[in-house]
Amino acid sequence: VPAEITLSNVEELAAEKLDPSWYGFYAGGAGAERTLRENVAAFARWRLRQRVLVGVERVDTNARVLGHDLSLPLVVAPIACQRPAHKDGEEGMARAAAAVGAGFCLSTFASASPADVAGAAPHGVRFLQLYVFRDRGLSDELVAQALEAGFTAILLTVDLPVVGMRDRELERAFVLPEDLHTVRVARASGSGTDGLALVDPTIDWAYLDRLCSSLGVPVVVKGVLEAEDARRAAACGAGGVVVSNHGARQLDGARATIDALPEVVDAVGDRLEVLVDGGVRRGADLLVALALGARAVLVGRQPVWGLAAGGERGARRVLELLREELEITMQLTGCRSLADASRAILVAR
Amino acid sequence: VPAEITLSNVEELAAEKLDPSWYGFYAGGAGAERTLRENVAAFARWRLRQRVLVGVERVDTNARVLGHDLSLPLVVAPIACQRPAHKDGEEGMARAAAAVGAGFCLSTFASASPADVAGAAPHGVRFLQLYVFRDRGLSDELVAQALEAGFTAILLTVDLPVVGMRDRELERAFVLPEDLHTVRVARASGSGTDGLALVDPTIDWAYLDRLCSSLGVPVVVKGVLEAEDARRAAACGAGGVVVSNHGARQLDGARATIDALPEVVDAVGDRLEVLVDGGVRRGADLLVALALGARAVLVGRQPVWGLAAGGERGARRVLELLREELEITMQLTGCRSLADASRAILVAR
Amino acid sequence: VPAEITLSNVEELAAEKLDPSWYGFYAGGAGAERTLRENVAAFARWRLRQRVLVGVERVDTNARVLGHDLSLPLVVAPIACQRPAHKDGEEGMARAAAAVGAGFCLSTFASASPADVAGAAPHGVRFLQLYVFRDRGLSDELVAQALEAGFTAILLTVDLPVVGMRDRELERAFVLPEDLHTVRVARASGSGTDGLALVDPTIDWAYLDRLCSSLGVPVVVKGVLEAEDARRAAACGAGGVVVSNHGARQLDGARATIDALPEVVDAVGDRLEVLVDGGVRRGADLLVALALGARAVLVGRQPVWGLAAGGERGARRVLELLREELEITMQLTGCRSLADASRAILVAR
Amino acid sequence: VPAEITLSNVEELAAEKLDPSWYGFYAGGAGAERTLRENVAAFARWRLRQRVLVGVERVDTNARVLGHDLSLPLVVAPIACQRPAHKDGEEGMARAAAAVGAGFCLSTFASASPADVAGAAPHGVRFLQLYVFRDRGLSDELVAQALEAGFTAILLTVDLPVVGMRDRELERAFVLPEDLHTVRVARASGSGTDGLALVDPTIDWAYLDRLCSSLGVPVVVKGVLEAEDARRAAACGAGGVVVSNHGARQLDGARATIDALPEVVDAVGDRLEVLVDGGVRRGADLLVALALGARAVLVGRQPVWGLAAGGERGARRVLELLREELEITMQLTGCRSLADASRAILVAR
Repeated sequence: VPAEITLSNVEELAAEKLDPSWYGFYAGGAGAERTLRENVAAFARWRLRQRVLVGVERVDTNARVLGHDLSLPLVVAPIACQRPAHKDGEEGMARAAAAVGAGFCLSTFASASPADVAGAAPHGVRFLQLYVFRDRGLSDELVAQALEAGFTAILLTVDLPVVGMRDRELERAFVLPEDLHTVRVARASGSGTDGLALVDPTIDWAYLDRLCSSLGVPVVVKGVLEAEDARRAAACGAGGVVVSNHGARQLDGARATIDALPEVVDAVGDRLEVLVDGGVRRGADLLVALALGARAVLVGRQPVWGLAAGGERGARRVLELLREELEITMQLTGCRSLADASRAILVAR
Repeated sequence: VPAEITLSNVEELAAEKLDPSWYGFYAGGAGAERTLRENVAAFARWRLRQRVLVGVERVDTNARVLGHDLSLPLVVAPIACQRPAHKDGEEGMARAAAAVGAGFCLSTFASASPADVAGAAPHGVRFLQLYVFRDRGLSDELVAQALEAGFTAILLTVDLPVVGMRDRELERAFVLPEDLHTVRVARASGSGTDGLALVDPTIDWAYLDRLCSSLGVPVVVKGVLEAEDARRAAACGAGGVVVSNHGARQLDGARATIDALPEVVDAVGDRLEVLVDGGVRRGADLLVALALGARAVLVGRQPVWGLAAGGERGARRVLELLREELEITMQLTGCRSLADASRAILVAR
Repeated sequence: VPAEITLSNVEELAAEKLDPSWYGFYAGGAGAERTLRENVAAFARWRLRQRVLVGVERVDTNARVLGHDLSLPLVVAPIACQRPAHKDGEEGMARAAAAVGAGFCLSTFASASPADVAGAAPHGVRFLQLYVFRDRGLSDELVAQALEAGFTAILLTVDLPVVGMRDRELERAFVLPEDLHTVRVARASGSGTDGLALVDPTIDWAYLDRLCSSLGVPVVVKGVLEAEDARRAAACGAGGVVVSNHGARQLDGARATIDALPEVVDAVGDRLEVLVDGGVRRGADLLVALALGARAVLVGRQPVWGLAAGGERGARRVLELLREELEITMQLTGCRSLADASRAILVAR
Repeated sequence: VPAEITLSNVEELAAEKLDPSWYGFYAGGAGAERTLRENVAAFARWRLRQRVLVGVERVDTNARVLGHDLSLPLVVAPIACQRPAHKDGEEGMARAAAAVGAGFCLSTFASASPADVAGAAPHGVRFLQLYVFRDRGLSDELVAQALEAGFTAILLTVDLPVVGMRDRELERAFVLPEDLHTVRVARASGSGTDGLALVDPTIDWAYLDRLCSSLGVPVVVKGVLEAEDARRAAACGAGGVVVSNHGARQLDGARATIDALPEVVDAVGDRLEVLVDGGVRRGADLLVALALGARAVLVGRQPVWGLAAGGERGARRVLELLREELEITMQLTGCRSLADASRAILVAR
């Protein structure tokens, strides 16, 4: 009999089903994967205060995130190209996110289009992750499609002026397939189709400034690890930042995101929404991030392992487990709602 | 030939005999099992001062615990449902505890009734671990049975307003069997029988206050890790606290109990008895806990492995080894009696 | 199908091709290999600051090293006896270095002569690593050959007054083969041929002083880990120092080179060029070393694994990967050129 | 072909030859073997300063230890019962020690008598390790035999008032054989023969005081880890102390000996000779101990592995390797003689 999915075994269950190249693509990090390990290890260093006899029966996990009331302060991270993990693909993942009250962020390099996602989960909260291409028309077209399909925020990725060296991909000469939505759009418009190579490395703070002024939805700067960069993002009018090292796929040696989060929160937490991703494996990790000031948490690999292991149902199960463990952890630390999730629930270091 | 039981190999000997689901139930912890590992690792970080030429031939391990003179400052922890470990069950464990001069604490979810235990080890010191049910009549009935059977303290578990996420159980869809004493009582009285789900998450300090006033025996609050909570327990009239994270089965990320112990002792050690559990694998761990101010130490997994490996004899052997190693460790640190087991025998950190 | 070479798998690919004795020779360190592990671990402890929206498309890796403009601040380290790794030997390695704009340093115990190397890569930057022999005539002859062949600096190894205890070699009774260039020269001149045993342990600061005055090219003192020794080297007129523990093959227990580098830079960085080697496995390590003040970095094992795995092409691929990852790391930390690689890009510890 | 013995592989070579019970006896430690691992790990934490161009060709390892000029500051530790390791037994080990200029210490529970050892290595420096028995006549007889046979110091073991819990022995119900010299003496005199159980746990400082006054040779107190105990030993007239935790076979949780050494040296180093044992695996460890103030170092397991792997020749090879690595380490840290081995050669922590 197959094992039930847990947050401990889901990566292994997924690895058994996935082609090794695809497993390496989703799992791998940059360089010697020092930051990949550190992202996880940094969460494990935090200690939570166990509080008792609080008399709490139900906890409230509602959060307001980028203008939406989410019943779970979690956003499924923009993992590229989810169809090869399971035929349910991004549509299934978006449905799973909506079912648990989480947000969903679509990758620029998704298997599905914004309209596909909107059709699959019309009531879900959805954001678009954006790479800016040298061919700005292509980026503009993707944004237009997303806004048309009811996407309500743009998460601008800024930590990929060049692609990190990912040895698991290099070793197997892995390349993304051609049937990605963005590639189809690019081909239709006569743009090149060479994936990440098309990303424009020259975008800068001036570009961000213009983008924030011109779009009618919040721009969230994804990939900020330094307080100074967060302050510049705020000054440009960004609606938020994601404290991120791109899931440890870009700069090997970058700090763990949960180590960088407090400085960013202290610098700009009163001016914009601070989100975080990287290394989140458990519901307790969610609470640590929230206690350190994150408004919501992006989680990528765990739901993708759920998708690979069991399609939409598997992804949903993983998200339900994350919710359940968040609730348990809140109850055991005496948090009635996320407003109680302050640094006081953590043991100082 | 089978290996002799040691404190090093007993878990492995037990695992060979146990059904994997039951091994997972007894061994597992919550979440990513960070606290499970940390409970053990925290003991290993302490260093004891080796003292020589003290001229001590025999050491005295007598301790006064909750009104009893124990010849060993150890209480067998309330591990649920011990019959599946070995047919000797809780009765065998209680006899083993009595044989070595230790106390025995019966779980609310035991295979045996308080009367069974009293009959099996009539001269043993026995306590009842209590979960408070939504159906208070059920809790009251259990307490009444225990007091009737000569149990002399109630260890009120307060760190389980909700059950921790235990992946080893989830993976195999493990559930406790129906033939537990409490379930039989509940069924007879028409209460529900859904185990831990029946526990009342709303009990609070006011409840504790009433319980301490109304019971004729000491109430020991089990599951305290914070000095502030210990002070409230003292104010409510508790007879003691157990510094515990429920064997790392509830809040993953909680501090190691031996790390939390000194603060609790400093806060309330002069007003009530402080006990501790979690991560104890060796007799030297007992001495570290006592040196840091614990009155006695609850030990669960090691005796259960003994029970699984060799029934009552196996459990007793484990307890004898713990006693023997405690005595050796006292002798090598120059402690004639437990009064000598102060922080001075530890290397300051 | 064979795996593509990456900086993660190249040692394993090489080990599959090499005779175990030769693998042990290239891979091994002294003693319990504490320093061998520490050299690598110390790099992994550094954290780099991820900076975003810098708008940099191309980074400039040019550096001036010992009078040469290198397009990559890397010198292939003087690994002894490279022919047994692959028939392409030192000639192939020198060509690989020249192809990527790196320098090449020939070992005293090379399979090839200085003239061979000059012939193979006439436009490459080349240095000679020098052991001083008891028979000074032999050392002088080697230097003369190197200068004649256009070598432009002498890296005087000072951390081998005696050979370290290398258990991997001892276990297999490994000895260097007789067909080394230096052995051929020694035999021709009637000197002994017993390899490292011929090295003169009595050379001292006075010798260095004379050598610096008498040679027409810079003398770089290779094997300095202490600021005081670096200051003496500067006082003797050395053109540079290499912060080195001989690839952890000499003093087991020596500090990691990257731990020693800052002190040496602070002591003499304004008076001579400070290079470093030891533990470099990734392009990110190069940037850490440069940020801490190294002018260039010697790298040995990684290119040798490339040579063993795929001859000159393999060595070149490894060097290309190191360059590529250096460039990526510069871009992700916001360094336009190596002038930007200051301690400010590192997270302070 | 069999591998050559190295300090890295000798334990493995021995384990292949030894009966598992005997391997467990020699290798094992007390309890969870925390101190066993820590003894070794603590040496690995020290860093040595690499110094260059010192111009030293030969180093001088001569030391004056307990009235003798040893050409190597090493004493083979009193490992019990060496005949089962190899038929060459203690006689072979004593010859090996003498051959390299080291001292030899005979165990109270040796396979051979003092006279056997004196006959085998008449020119070797030899000490007796002494357990004091309840039957003082037995202890006196052993001391008398040793003095008669030219033993020149008594190493009084004080850290064994009771035997540590050694799980490797318990698991296999290991007991020392009957054909030990002391057992033969005991049987002849009508004393009991139950090995370590005969040791008198009540000896104290007063006993030490009398012993120091009554013996004509130095009494060295073996098993001191605390400065206060060292001062008392000095006050009693001891000729030395051995900073020791009995090879981690007694108090699990005791500090690593090399961590305790500096305090003991600071307390009594000017009044008596401080020796140390525990965790020494390499020649570099010897130099660390000497630099921290030890007069000489007792080494047990490594020579016993050599004995098991290759008899007297094997033991001698191990001792030669330790000497050779000590010399190399001195040369690479710029020590001409042991007088140069001060704390200045270590990197401060």
